[in-house]
Amino acid sequence: MAKGNQKKVEDITAMDVDFSKWYTDVVKKAALMDYGSVKGSMILQPYGFAIWENMRNDLDKRFKKTGVENVYMPMLIPESLLQKEKDHVAGFAPEVAWVTVGGNETLQERLCIRPTSETLFCEHFAKVIQSYRDLPKVYNQWCSVMRWEKTTRPFLRSSEFLWQEGHTMHETKEEAMERTIQMYQVYADFFKETLAIPVVGGQKTESEKFAGAEATYTIEAMMHNGYALQSGTSHYFGDGFAKSFDITFTGRDNKLQYPHQTSWGVSTRMIGAVIMVHGDDNGLVLPPRIAPTQVVIVPVAQHKPGVLDKCRELLSSLTDNFRVKLDDSDNSPGWKYSQYEMLGVPIRLEMGPRDIENGQCVLVRRDTGEKIPASLDTLNETIAALLDTIHENMYQNACKNLEEKTFEATTLEEFTEIANNKGGFIKAMWCGDEACEEKIKDITNGVKSRCIPFEEDKLSDVCVCCGKPAKHMLYWGRQY
Amino acid sequence: MAKGNQKKVEDITAMDVDFSKWYTDVVKKAALMDYGSVKGSMILQPYGFAIWENMRNDLDKRFKKTGVENVYMPMLIPESLLQKEKDHVAGFAPEVAWVTVGGNETLQERLCIRPTSETLFCEHFAKVIQSYRDLPKVYNQWCSVMRWEKTTRPFLRSSEFLWQEGHTMHETKEEAMERTIQMYQVYADFFKETLAIPVVGGQKTESEKFAGAEATYTIEAMMHNGYALQSGTSHYFGDGFAKSFDITFTGRDNKLQYPHQTSWGVSTRMIGAVIMVHGDDNGLVLPPRIAPTQVVIVPVAQHKPGVLDKCRELLSSLTDNFRVKLDDSDNSPGWKYSQYEMLGVPIRLEMGPRDIENGQCVLVRRDTGEKIPASLDTLNETIAALLDTIHENMYQNACKNLEEKTFEATTLEEFTEIANNKGGFIKAMWCGDEACEEKIKDITNGVKSRCIPFEEDKLSDVCVCCGKPAKHMLYWGRQY
Repeated sequence: MAKGNQKKVEDITAMDVDFSKWYTDVVKKAALMDYGSVKGSMILQPYGFAIWENMRNDLDKRFKKTGVENVYMPMLIPESLLQKEKDHVAGFAPEVAWVTVGGNETLQERLCIRPTSETLFCEHFAKVIQSYRDLPKVYNQWCSVMRWEKTTRPFLRSSEFLWQEGHTMHETKEEAMERTIQMYQVYADFFKETLAIPVVGGQKTESEKFAGAEATYTIEAMMHNGYALQSGTSHYFGDGFAKSFDITFTGRDNKLQYPHQTSWGVSTRMIGAVIMVHGDDNGLVLPPRIAPTQVVIVPVAQHKPGVLDKCRELLSSLTDNFRVKLDDSDNSPGWKYSQYEMLGVPIRLEMGPRDIENGQCVLVRRDTGEKIPASLDTLNETIAALLDTIHENMYQNACKNLEEKTFEATTLEEFTEIANNKGGFIKAMWCGDEACEEKIKDITNGVKSRCIPFEEDKLSDVCVCCGKPAKHMLYWGRQY
Repeated sequence: MAKGNQKKVEDITAMDVDFSKWYTDVVKKAALMDYGSVKGSMILQPYGFAIWENMRNDLDKRFKKTGVENVYMPMLIPESLLQKEKDHVAGFAPEVAWVTVGGNETLQERLCIRPTSETLFCEHFAKVIQSYRDLPKVYNQWCSVMRWEKTTRPFLRSSEFLWQEGHTMHETKEEAMERTIQMYQVYADFFKETLAIPVVGGQKTESEKFAGAEATYTIEAMMHNGYALQSGTSHYFGDGFAKSFDITFTGRDNKLQYPHQTSWGVSTRMIGAVIMVHGDDNGLVLPPRIAPTQVVIVPVAQHKPGVLDKCRELLSSLTDNFRVKLDDSDNSPGWKYSQYEMLGVPIRLEMGPRDIENGQCVLVRRDTGEKIPASLDTLNETIAALLDTIHENMYQNACKNLEEKTFEATTLEEFTEIANNKGGFIKAMWCGDEACEEKIKDITNGVKSRCIPFEEDKLSDVCVCCGKPAKHMLYWGRQY
């Protein structure tokens, strides 16, 4: 690490000292977000929003490839509409914001700001679905939602956040289930291929599933501090909402029937995952495919004749292929080095008089700190390959961290020992009884079931908690 | 027009019979939007949203080229914050929705859903601007806003709509004024180059400017029925908001001073402009650069061997360059012809057994109905050129319509005669007195000043209304 780096590092609390403080230091220093004056509200600043935009654009393409169409639903839900599906309203009503006055008049009926939009989509589906020919409907919207939270943490918990919510209707149960799993897989692929984050995935238990769903599938990522982050969910609803909202269609058999429904979503919470999976004591480390700046050009001895000209030339030769930036400000190279390290820019390109003489520049990797001399003749190809290498290396590091933080327990003693001293994911057998989930949560002070993976190991025959015959292997963990 | 077209046309009221009904018929038939259950709320359906997405992506690129950074501000504004700038609150307070309950608690202070976000941006600017080095701030957000409207009309007036709002802060008045005009020009260019719509542009009079602005610039488009549509505005705020929100910075002279501010926005209202400028009695006519489908392939005699295969081959050979769709459904070619005409798809590509034999297809233009045989060998080039030709022709037609609907009046009798019998824009001289604007509005039952153009003609020496010396030439017109 170069000398110039020292200063910045002092501003960020070391991860090992206080992980929570490290996290908020990074968020603040990189100017990703700020709080608004309403408690729990979030301002996405330019750098944070640019990360979100890159995530959104990538995901949106993946969605559209599977036939998703974007729409926009209203943000206000009448109280009577929210109440139509009883599990759903029980899950959300306690945490919504209510509009009671419009213009200068008190409203006849309260309207809540959407905490999620199942009810609005269902109301619309009831109008536009009549025949099997109108199916499937595969809709998505990018919007903000509101959940009246008392505690807040940047990107992980706030009263308003940005997300996408997909809502689909299908002719058959099989097709809906296929779509549920398909979108789960789109998320898992996106995490691996774009965010360089491996996930543990599977089905939520009954007590952890979404309010109103028959089945919820989740992707769970492992943070540096051993906490799990639920990062995306895909729900199969069956025809429960359809019955509550009276959505019917005439089938191929000419009989009236209920369609089968899914919903699925990811949010700005993913930014939190990226920070806590990849970041280090110098700040952000951004995966190249979502980094707002992929390459920053830092001139060395920029007052010397020709240096800035050559840097500008480089900038324009790279700008078609990469998100590239030239910092020709008066700040010292040392200041710039630590600044762009803190911002997690994947590649720093250094260029000085001697480099120009030699027809080369120096590429410095954010993930490893490695310095690589590179010929200017083939720079576009070199950078493209290096960005892929950085992505792959970041993914492998994250995999290693996930592995090191995944444990197995066959007894309650082992389980609590790991939970209290190691953190991370704990794989353990489970009888299927909610009481055991409750008990484990109590004695570990918060470890909850994460998911039943698609492929379960058989660690033993009996539940880690009660000793009764085991039904499933569960991933467990402390969560954000 | 082919025979098959007849059916669809019957479903759309002819423009000349009832323009308002024609408009809502087209919106409904093309499934662009629907109303939600809350009065005045709007559901953007897939086809309508896809048009919006194409507009947004194009504009966003234009913004970013000028240095704009996207952010996201919270949707709720505390009442005390809304009240900080007195002209602003007077303009908006009567038409906002108020949140009074969060979770299960009555809030200490009411929060309104943003009708626009000047106040939120100003609160944030006050925190992040300290020195001239922090300037300029050139921010924008894409979001939905809420204005509690009693009357609604698809895309033109609804209680919630989508838009973008740019908010910028500058060191000097000159720089802020330059940005105000720059964004006005970005809008005017976008209308011409992307929407194929010519606009009349200029400055709003005092009585028509934005609540809190020192100067408002507007682009105004001319609809088929002679109504003007205010389609985008750019505001210069001076330092009024900065003073109210105590936003200061240390200047190059080391003295504390107020920055100079702008804001600018366009909304889903632009979809209304596209419908009413380009549409005809068969439905939508979409400008190629925002059409969700630019080319629809309609197989002729699709049951004959080889036809569908060849159409699929065509689809994949065009799909990299264009937004293209193949309709291989069981519907008749005639039904398909009128369906895609109604949807305003710029080019219909017909392909049958004889075409395949001849190594060609037939391209049918939506704007003129012209049928053009095209060789398959150079189809990508032919279509690219034809889409440009269609754009240019649509723009020229819109210019012609604008010209034909622009009149001059030098006496009040002429003015009212045109206002009552012809509609369109009326160019007339004005003394600068608000009373004359009021009087003209009264006697014409609603004709208002649109703008003072950047280049004014001198039609006479005196105000068209009161006969006193004229200060400006104004565009006037009935508005949506």
